[in-house]
Amino acid sequence: MRAVEIIARKRDGLSLSNEEIHFFVQGFTEGKIPDYQAAAWLMAVRLQGMDRQETVALTMAIAGSGKRLQLHDIAPFVVDKHSTGGVGDKTTLVVAPLVAAAGVPVAKISGRGLGFTGGTLDKLESIPGFRSDLSVKEFRAQLQAIGLVVAGQSADLAPADGKLYALRDVTATVDSLPLIASSIMGKKIAAGADGIVLDVKVGNGSFMQTEEDALALATLMVEIGQETGRRVRAVLSDMSQPLGRAVGNALELREAIETLQGNGPFDFRQHCLTIAAQALLIAGRFPDGAAAKEHLIRLIESGQAWLKFREWIAAQGGDLRYVDEPARLPAAHWVRELPAPRSAYIAGLNAREVGMASMALGGGRAKKGDPIDYAVGIVLQAKIGDRVEAGQPLLSVHANDEHLLAEVSQRLLAAYTWSDDPVQPPPLLRRIVGAGTPLPNP
Amino acid sequence: MRAVEIIARKRDGLSLSNEEIHFFVQGFTEGKIPDYQAAAWLMAVRLQGMDRQETVALTMAIAGSGKRLQLHDIAPFVVDKHSTGGVGDKTTLVVAPLVAAAGVPVAKISGRGLGFTGGTLDKLESIPGFRSDLSVKEFRAQLQAIGLVVAGQSADLAPADGKLYALRDVTATVDSLPLIASSIMGKKIAAGADGIVLDVKVGNGSFMQTEEDALALATLMVEIGQETGRRVRAVLSDMSQPLGRAVGNALELREAIETLQGNGPFDFRQHCLTIAAQALLIAGRFPDGAAAKEHLIRLIESGQAWLKFREWIAAQGGDLRYVDEPARLPAAHWVRELPAPRSAYIAGLNAREVGMASMALGGGRAKKGDPIDYAVGIVLQAKIGDRVEAGQPLLSVHANDEHLLAEVSQRLLAAYTWSDDPVQPPPLLRRIVGAGTPLPNP
Repeated sequence: MRAVEIIARKRDGLSLSNEEIHFFVQGFTEGKIPDYQAAAWLMAVRLQGMDRQETVALTMAIAGSGKRLQLHDIAPFVVDKHSTGGVGDKTTLVVAPLVAAAGVPVAKISGRGLGFTGGTLDKLESIPGFRSDLSVKEFRAQLQAIGLVVAGQSADLAPADGKLYALRDVTATVDSLPLIASSIMGKKIAAGADGIVLDVKVGNGSFMQTEEDALALATLMVEIGQETGRRVRAVLSDMSQPLGRAVGNALELREAIETLQGNGPFDFRQHCLTIAAQALLIAGRFPDGAAAKEHLIRLIESGQAWLKFREWIAAQGGDLRYVDEPARLPAAHWVRELPAPRSAYIAGLNAREVGMASMALGGGRAKKGDPIDYAVGIVLQAKIGDRVEAGQPLLSVHANDEHLLAEVSQRLLAAYTWSDDPVQPPPLLRRIVGAGTPLPNP
Repeated sequence: MRAVEIIARKRDGLSLSNEEIHFFVQGFTEGKIPDYQAAAWLMAVRLQGMDRQETVALTMAIAGSGKRLQLHDIAPFVVDKHSTGGVGDKTTLVVAPLVAAAGVPVAKISGRGLGFTGGTLDKLESIPGFRSDLSVKEFRAQLQAIGLVVAGQSADLAPADGKLYALRDVTATVDSLPLIASSIMGKKIAAGADGIVLDVKVGNGSFMQTEEDALALATLMVEIGQETGRRVRAVLSDMSQPLGRAVGNALELREAIETLQGNGPFDFRQHCLTIAAQALLIAGRFPDGAAAKEHLIRLIESGQAWLKFREWIAAQGGDLRYVDEPARLPAAHWVRELPAPRSAYIAGLNAREVGMASMALGGGRAKKGDPIDYAVGIVLQAKIGDRVEAGQPLLSVHANDEHLLAEVSQRLLAAYTWSDDPVQPPPLLRRIVGAGTPLPNP
């Protein structure tokens, strides 16, 4: 088998065999196939596509490119939850302890923020002492001890994915459904997940701009799950405006804490309940979503979810004084409230622009490895559909640089569109995809 | 301007601007744009194509990627001749001195053989002493002195082309019309050609398998010529069987010498007259092809073409004793005549297979830099349409290895197809393309 012939077959729109895909991915991972051949192949895949059999083969080749976690000696069924990335998306911070509190083991490999989207690890690391660089031994021990662990990607797991992603980023081959789907699912399978809840975001603050594209990605990932013996549900959720009210690492952590304690913004709480309920359903714990949600609400009301959160943070070295008293968390030097420029209904609140603003303040990364400021960000006082009066607070900007504060304030005001007539807020939950076909909305 | 954005635009099927193409080619040549980005871009070009404006821009970017020869202080109009490559294609050895003998200066950059196709420089270098690695100073001085020079590609001229070709070869992006056309034309323009006669081969012994593909390539190159102010004619000629009778470096040189002396195979002589006549026409020397050919025949009959050839070989250091007495040229140890296996008409004589056989004997290269045996090759005694009787000589194999001789003989016999009914030989000249549109056949 020769790499150039495999490239030529994909260039010609032919379907590659399992053997060809494994040969290519393994050769690339080991450095036997050079970057330039992988780049040409990626562009051929981007333009000619891949069928389901090829996408499954690519997923398994990525999953098998390094070590694979085996967790069945610890728990018979482990769930993971993955978001395609958004603005204000602190869902894991609430869903992971909630599901674990319900007795379903959660073992999650998580990422850092890049561009306008935030990352779970950055939010967690705003707690002093919190460690996400766990060894496999630590990862397994914590899962065994408390049924909940969230760690960063290890270089041993699915190394092909990191190499492929770095190349896709510089060769304009990121936006390919089979490449996105196999990247996500390959990592999850390598990390030992039996059940996977996918939070597929739709809208300007996410990678999928239309419901059609998001549905295609969700359906493909659910199909990969079927072919590889994993139980997968995908929730299509709105990202045309930020999720919840807080955007920024420590600000989002605070909002997650409030939510776990029974408060928090209504939309964010509902979203967490939807995602967590899907995790309980694929674990076979409840007959329907309504019963699962009822149980989850009780876990919040009784304080059990909050206790599981504390247990989790302590297990990974986080200083509990900071979560018990969030006022101790990193706070910005300047907090400025921006007043509404007019009396009207909010018709649009561009999530991407808010994400870019938070990044500009120092809360995100323009490129991998950039330093991050945990304290800065934005808190929204009103969202789409809300009526505001001129001069009333619209949002607050948390900044550590007065010059940036002024710059970002202008940008944020431009992220709004207005209407004199009442506006319907966008539905948060678009639909749920499971077992290969879209299910009716719950 | 960023490379990844240019890749993305081509990926999306958009037309790139002159500036974008120059930025990309120059950046790649200078090593600022890495191989993997160029590879992704090449695959995007291969799959999305390029319009005429882009192909012209790419041609000029390649031509301008290094030094450019300026020859107008020596001659107001210099012609070059280029073949897309074939089997038994020794046309340059005859056409270059013929055109120069007619008073039209010929300055040609030539190549070496690769795969089943031969290269002009290898054929010339079977003459002891012949040098093709001329400096720019030597190249110019010889053009001035005798109106004829043929040298190898210098690293200074069109360096982008060499880099791009090496990458195309390993990324399955060779067979792209705009990439082929810009590669050929970019080099010719860098080398200072005002007029270019293109010999575009059609058939199993060439890269273009169908007349449709060959016509598309020819038309595109003629159009590039128009856009860049060069006079270009393209001749579509048959390569479904070898050209002439000899295949192999010294064997082809002998056949060229015979042709320059008024003998040689009929088909090859006709082909040389056609190509040379087009060179005289674009130089404005004759009103029509018939008058040009008449003049060229006189140059052969009078011995002037042969004298120009000797002058040329001597100027580049070749030992004239070897061309005056071709029996001195490298000769193979074994020469075996293969008898016809049956009494029939030859219906097919696969040029590619004959080329592969010559390469297998050591007369060609599987990859760049391989050593070459000048002596070996094949001489055909009959071609398509000829009637042969069983046992009559069909061809002779010239070999320096007895084992290879037996192996290749089997392969050669399998290259023939037979017919009991008379067979029409394929027309050698398919058509001539000039000034952007196909001309009527002459």
